[in-house]
Amino acid sequence: MIEKVRLAEKLAMISEFWAPKIVGEVGDFHVKLVKLEGEFVWHSHPEEDEMFLVLEGELTMRLREGEIHLLPGEFLVIPHGIEHQPFAQNEASVLLFEPKSTLNTGDAGGDRTRLAEAI
Amino acid sequence: MIEKVRLAEKLAMISEFWAPKIVGEVGDFHVKLVKLEGEFVWHSHPEEDEMFLVLEGELTMRLREGEIHLLPGEFLVIPHGIEHQPFAQNEASVLLFEPKSTLNTGDAGGDRTRLAEAI
Repeated sequence: MIEKVRLAEKLAMISEFWAPKIVGEVGDFHVKLVKLEGEFVWHSHPEEDEMFLVLEGELTMRLREGEIHLLPGEFLVIPHGIEHQPFAQNEASVLLFEPKSTLNTGDAGGDRTRLAEAI
Repeated sequence: MIEKVRLAEKLAMISEFWAPKIVGEVGDFHVKLVKLEGEFVWHSHPEEDEMFLVLEGELTMRLREGEIHLLPGEFLVIPHGIEHQPFAQNEASVLLFEPKSTLNTGDAGGDRTRLAEAI
């Protein structure tokens, strides 16, 4: 049974920041939603490229080469192995597209690690 | 050099309907944009799951089991092997996530086949 997913409905179910939730599966990739506020840890994903598409609010992606500021309707792809630190001055909602093996804290680990659950 | 992509800017570059354009690469997947109007051919993708996220307008996905109507901010995933026929009463803009090997007409082929180019 194929069913559509309404992003706004799923976002309304998310209360914790920096805890990506799985909302879809495409081959060996997951579609995830995450709410962000403040700054995350610097990390990289050794194997996985990661796409960030901003849905609401604004996202600053800090990279070693500088930072990139994203508004709703804008995306970027962080290639595997590239260190990055997401930062959001105010609450932002982001759609992620990444391999199923991707961990939110990548190689950094630590107490901000969350195993993504489906909602 | 990592650069962000503005969906609206890329959509403004697309004039042909039913001709997906590549706007990003995530592992072995492509992010594509496509404008739709009218109905496409019935087809399936033997190997590739395909995600449709509606950005503008409305999309009806006809399936053998029925049809699903999508508004902006809604998506669905068509698993590989499932026959589908996209239909849009009026112009619609859609973001696709799909394996790089995915052909727009899948197993149907024919004169509506377009090789996706990067824009």
